[in-house]
Amino acid sequence: MHKVTKFAIRHLSDKASRFVPKAGVYPKGYAVGGIHCGVKKDGKSLDLAILQNTFGKNASAAGVFTVNKFKAAPVQVSKKILKEKSGLGINSFVINSGNANAVTGTQGMRDAEDMVLVTDSVLDNPTNSSLVMSTGVIGNNLPIDKILGGIPKLASQHLGNTHQHWIDCATAICTTDTFPKLVTKRFSIGDDTYTLAGLCKGAGMICPNMATLLGFFVTDAPVTPSALQQILKYAVDRSFNSISVDGDMSTNDTIVAMANGAAGGEVIDNTSSCAERYSRLQTEIVGFAQQLAQLVVRDGEGATKFITIRVKDALSYKDAKSIASSIANSSLFKTAMYGKDANWGRILCAIGYANVTSANSVIPEKTSVKFVPVDGSDHLNLLVNGEPEQVDEERASEILQNEDLIVEVNLGTNGGQNADFWTCDLSHEYVTINGDYRS
Amino acid sequence: MHKVTKFAIRHLSDKASRFVPKAGVYPKGYAVGGIHCGVKKDGKSLDLAILQNTFGKNASAAGVFTVNKFKAAPVQVSKKILKEKSGLGINSFVINSGNANAVTGTQGMRDAEDMVLVTDSVLDNPTNSSLVMSTGVIGNNLPIDKILGGIPKLASQHLGNTHQHWIDCATAICTTDTFPKLVTKRFSIGDDTYTLAGLCKGAGMICPNMATLLGFFVTDAPVTPSALQQILKYAVDRSFNSISVDGDMSTNDTIVAMANGAAGGEVIDNTSSCAERYSRLQTEIVGFAQQLAQLVVRDGEGATKFITIRVKDALSYKDAKSIASSIANSSLFKTAMYGKDANWGRILCAIGYANVTSANSVIPEKTSVKFVPVDGSDHLNLLVNGEPEQVDEERASEILQNEDLIVEVNLGTNGGQNADFWTCDLSHEYVTINGDYRS
Repeated sequence: MHKVTKFAIRHLSDKASRFVPKAGVYPKGYAVGGIHCGVKKDGKSLDLAILQNTFGKNASAAGVFTVNKFKAAPVQVSKKILKEKSGLGINSFVINSGNANAVTGTQGMRDAEDMVLVTDSVLDNPTNSSLVMSTGVIGNNLPIDKILGGIPKLASQHLGNTHQHWIDCATAICTTDTFPKLVTKRFSIGDDTYTLAGLCKGAGMICPNMATLLGFFVTDAPVTPSALQQILKYAVDRSFNSISVDGDMSTNDTIVAMANGAAGGEVIDNTSSCAERYSRLQTEIVGFAQQLAQLVVRDGEGATKFITIRVKDALSYKDAKSIASSIANSSLFKTAMYGKDANWGRILCAIGYANVTSANSVIPEKTSVKFVPVDGSDHLNLLVNGEPEQVDEERASEILQNEDLIVEVNLGTNGGQNADFWTCDLSHEYVTINGDYRS
Repeated sequence: MHKVTKFAIRHLSDKASRFVPKAGVYPKGYAVGGIHCGVKKDGKSLDLAILQNTFGKNASAAGVFTVNKFKAAPVQVSKKILKEKSGLGINSFVINSGNANAVTGTQGMRDAEDMVLVTDSVLDNPTNSSLVMSTGVIGNNLPIDKILGGIPKLASQHLGNTHQHWIDCATAICTTDTFPKLVTKRFSIGDDTYTLAGLCKGAGMICPNMATLLGFFVTDAPVTPSALQQILKYAVDRSFNSISVDGDMSTNDTIVAMANGAAGGEVIDNTSSCAERYSRLQTEIVGFAQQLAQLVVRDGEGATKFITIRVKDALSYKDAKSIASSIANSSLFKTAMYGKDANWGRILCAIGYANVTSANSVIPEKTSVKFVPVDGSDHLNLLVNGEPEQVDEERASEILQNEDLIVEVNLGTNGGQNADFWTCDLSHEYVTINGDYRS
């Protein structure tokens, strides 16, 4: 019989107090908010959110959507609108939580379209200038009357630009999340000062919910739709597509961005003439999106650890990311982290079966692995140029007591390409949440 | 706080009594056995096995090896010998358990070569006519003197062809397995009667062990090396490469086969003139390899369920297998099975993100999913042509009480290609074994 440990208990208030900001800096020209409209059964939890561009009617938008073959109705509708408008003149986002409007047939498509229609109408938008998102239970039609009744109420009485409005908006898109996820940031490009605000919700799925990865961020910088789409794709690859909570990809995953130009300055395009401003903005947005995405990992179901997989000196970014992802998604690695076990064999094994591009992508005798503590103390070598180290188990155990850890893999290929990936451990509580929820 | 359930306790004796045969039919011309030579620390567990062809010195052999970049020394040595000999004149297998001889540098290569050398010598084989396998802890050099001392003792005193010899051989390759895995089968091709005997060991990894998937089977049918290699590859794709315990692939995974022709009859080649006999043999070997591979799933770490994922009517076998694998490897699906939860959303989600070959590989409105109980009672539809069914939860719960279950996905593409995949659930005990083992 195996040793049995007590389940970790989630400290909701603790997480909330550590990861939810008490104040924020917010971009100009936006109004947001959230209310309870009746999708969630408890009669009080916020379940409807709107973000509105209040600076004219000509904001740029961009989106990255799930590649799952079973795309929920709101994903299909939002993709279509974004394409029709070429990303220009998208002025609001409308989101409900509690029901994902997924696998809901033609009625589901009509409901998603109606959410757009009513939102555009009450916000005096031109037709088809809202994007719609849903998250929650799949396979049931939306209580559409409650939502369509809630939209005018929310739009007329509950939108604003205070910190509390943003917190309400972030809370209203949550399902099984234990805290609302909100990040804000102010930065300069040349003489211009811009602001980013973003929010997202978690990726775990709790039966019968299929919780979704939803995220959106907005800025008052002036950006063309095509530049925004390109930056968003680049940033999502390095943030929301570089996290793994359980490796599953939902029917509703959506990340969208909006830029309204309310803070003025020269328009940022992806042409060579504004390469420097473009590059500055991209760097800011990548870092910002990573901050947002990391909150999803922090709130991973049953997570007790926050692990950065850092792959260095790969032949290509694709190789680096593929290897990082392989480690981050290994159940054996994730349970070892939960067990505070410096098991380099599992890391090496996951490197060895990663889907890489060339025979020289992984050279065993050039591969090194180490643990890097985030407290600035010395790193611990596990494997150096393919040779196992005599690991100081006491030091390993000390490092693994911490919540945060960096696992650094150096491939030594001289390709110089790096990738970071974020993951959590696989705990008893994960099994409890996902296996026993309904029993 | 979430509901906490008691851990399942592994019923070792129960599994052993259900899955270990009390007798077997064995092929002609082989001698096998296992002893304790001192690799395992307890001073008694069997840890060295030999299989010897006693019908001449000209048996055919074939092998399928791990594609992990970190290939253990015995994998490299066996691949090399098999290639050099073109699969002809391989007369024995030598296997140690307790130490994987992986990530062991040049000393590891020498040790693996010495195991071949000594085995060939004591069995009066020509040079390089043995294949070598190792399984167990990685990163430590073999206690090679104990092994090289054990080989002559085993070869001279402990080889034979009784049921007990085969059980000893199967036991001697085990590491964290809870029962030895042995299957035998007699079949006819035309007027000729042939016999297959095979054994394997489990795929789970328990820290600090990196347990390996090892398997080998032998027959007294006369088969050319090239036909045997082709059949082995085909059979392994549909058996050992169609199981998932935790999705990880080790540094040592090896499946080999030998055919000595001791039972006589016309030689089976992969030429058109013996297509019928080839096809008959292939069918027998596929079914046989599936029986063997399924024992690994039965013994999966912490497994409480044995689940067959059956994908029907795919555009291609590759699609069918990819979709089956995607479901079988989904942590969310596996925890739902552990929780006895008829969560079709997770199945559908895993279908939707499977890596398929064409845009028409998965058509949501043609996809159906059902549970098929193995007791012959009625199946339970979960999704029919993309529409969710009103699931009778009581019936679902009844079906999910059973250890065995078939999850059948019909893709409705009219491609007509099918694949089966076998997996187990993801339980609290899995996390306990893999996370808490050393703590």
